[in-house]
Amino acid sequence: MNSSTYAEAGVDVKKAESFVERLKKMSRRAGHEELWKGAGGYAAVYPTGKDQAVAVTTDGVGTKLLLANKLQRYDTIGIDLVAMCANDLICVGAKPTIFLDYFAIGVLEDKAADQIIKGIVDGCDQAQMILAGGETAEMPGLYQPGHFDLAGFALGHVTRSSLITGSGIAAGQTVIGVASSGIHSNGLSLARKVLPDTKECLESLLVPTHIYVQPVVQILNAIGSKIKGIAHITGGGWRNLFRLNESVGFAIENPLPIPSILQQIGKSVTAEEMYKTFNMGMGLTVIVNGTADYVIKVFQDAGFHAQVIGEVTDEPKKMRIGKIDGVKSITLVDS
Amino acid sequence: MNSSTYAEAGVDVKKAESFVERLKKMSRRAGHEELWKGAGGYAAVYPTGKDQAVAVTTDGVGTKLLLANKLQRYDTIGIDLVAMCANDLICVGAKPTIFLDYFAIGVLEDKAADQIIKGIVDGCDQAQMILAGGETAEMPGLYQPGHFDLAGFALGHVTRSSLITGSGIAAGQTVIGVASSGIHSNGLSLARKVLPDTKECLESLLVPTHIYVQPVVQILNAIGSKIKGIAHITGGGWRNLFRLNESVGFAIENPLPIPSILQQIGKSVTAEEMYKTFNMGMGLTVIVNGTADYVIKVFQDAGFHAQVIGEVTDEPKKMRIGKIDGVKSITLVDS
Repeated sequence: MNSSTYAEAGVDVKKAESFVERLKKMSRRAGHEELWKGAGGYAAVYPTGKDQAVAVTTDGVGTKLLLANKLQRYDTIGIDLVAMCANDLICVGAKPTIFLDYFAIGVLEDKAADQIIKGIVDGCDQAQMILAGGETAEMPGLYQPGHFDLAGFALGHVTRSSLITGSGIAAGQTVIGVASSGIHSNGLSLARKVLPDTKECLESLLVPTHIYVQPVVQILNAIGSKIKGIAHITGGGWRNLFRLNESVGFAIENPLPIPSILQQIGKSVTAEEMYKTFNMGMGLTVIVNGTADYVIKVFQDAGFHAQVIGEVTDEPKKMRIGKIDGVKSITLVDS
Repeated sequence: MNSSTYAEAGVDVKKAESFVERLKKMSRRAGHEELWKGAGGYAAVYPTGKDQAVAVTTDGVGTKLLLANKLQRYDTIGIDLVAMCANDLICVGAKPTIFLDYFAIGVLEDKAADQIIKGIVDGCDQAQMILAGGETAEMPGLYQPGHFDLAGFALGHVTRSSLITGSGIAAGQTVIGVASSGIHSNGLSLARKVLPDTKECLESLLVPTHIYVQPVVQILNAIGSKIKGIAHITGGGWRNLFRLNESVGFAIENPLPIPSILQQIGKSVTAEEMYKTFNMGMGLTVIVNGTADYVIKVFQDAGFHAQVIGEVTDEPKKMRIGKIDGVKSITLVDS
């Protein structure tokens, strides 16, 4: 079997992680309100009053940009950009409100730029956010012809009582998986490395990331206290679940169907590497205490397939994944 | 005289502006609190309560990045990044609190990356902000070896009564100029086009942007109601003053000294183009109603030269600039 890893595709996750550690050490500041701790560090939560806070996060869409470029289809990459940020905000229980974009390009080309912004506006619609501003930077010399980069910044509001900290997650609670639309915006470099460069593959990879804001806000408003954790499945794949609470593990007996594009990638990549890199059909994971029926119904009504996929265990940082097509079962551990 | 313009350097300001107009039309959203109007649109101001709001902005450092690359000096470009955002926030009267960075690079190279982040941390120190998070994206294929991009997102807090709207600006008020450190982070493409590629020139251009947060916050806390407008002199040069209030103009009789690097550029660029592109020695402009002595003293105490440079006039969108070395006087109009 010709196995590929993320590192072979040119992305050194370990080095990036050690860099992030150094960054954390350098970034401690005095003289400010202490940040509230939101689950998984998906967003920084800064108090604006005794019971009020803003949650902020920033993200990009990685090398999915190159795909948009290759196909010259620019109208959905902005949806991915908003998705990457907005889906992070809801993981700490915040209601997304404001989005800002940073759009850098070699030479501004009206048609492509309009489409990119149209995508961002569509994404903001789906995420119920205001596109409150942005920066468009023309940088001849930095970007090759046609190349561009996008970064997003999102702000949401959360109260002390609606903040999701992950500390309430405990063995026996129900784990709900919400279907992804495909690869979303992570693992594209590896995908491009192992997949054939056909139009069909590229178009499958370009399908925009689902934005889960509307149903999640509805659920939090209705039964917020029952929602113990929400994980946006991004870089690091299913290891994102480990971010929520260090003292629990997960038994995933009934995973969601794996999108065909990810199945194709799986022919060249080990199952473990797949689950450590891709969303494997699950864009969002919700951990509930008690009945899951209402949560699943709200997602279904919003057009997203959702199902109970397993439960929380008391084995710290360990995930057993069973019943995978062609694989007996695998175990992920947080390293 | 061999005159160069910003357009000849590859940056089409008119096209960028029309794009921004289209963006505005596409970005109107319903179902949210109405944004407060801060002077000059330097930041979006979103209310979090009856009297409280957050101000948010995003910016990059443009092609100053390429300069850092060329000189392989990465420890100050992060200061520019924070400066570009934090100096925008103070223009609406907001107190900067949170900074997030987006750092994209082809392949993460520890030493350069550490220096870049060190600069961001230094900038956050100067701006009294928390570096609350960020995204580090490795994108093999998008960035050429050694190339990288940076975007910053900054958030501040402002109250209804401390918001600077610019509406109180009126003829006869005093205009104070605060010295820049040099070119700051705008006009670098044009500068590089006309200047010789010597180490001396490049190092002069790389001097980091002044961060004016500390003295401005002190001034706003002490005599906020006297401060009618603050303009961060960025892209568009002195035309930034026109952003504050459409019904006034400016008579600048006593401009600040022009840094030698900008004087050098001025040998190849018309005076009008210079004032429309560069800060011309003035990084920040403060419009006060009444005595300027206190304001000037606070800037001086913080290490920034400041002086009265002129006054507000009742000629809308018109600026007369007199007593410039080698030029009799020029008039800028907002187009």
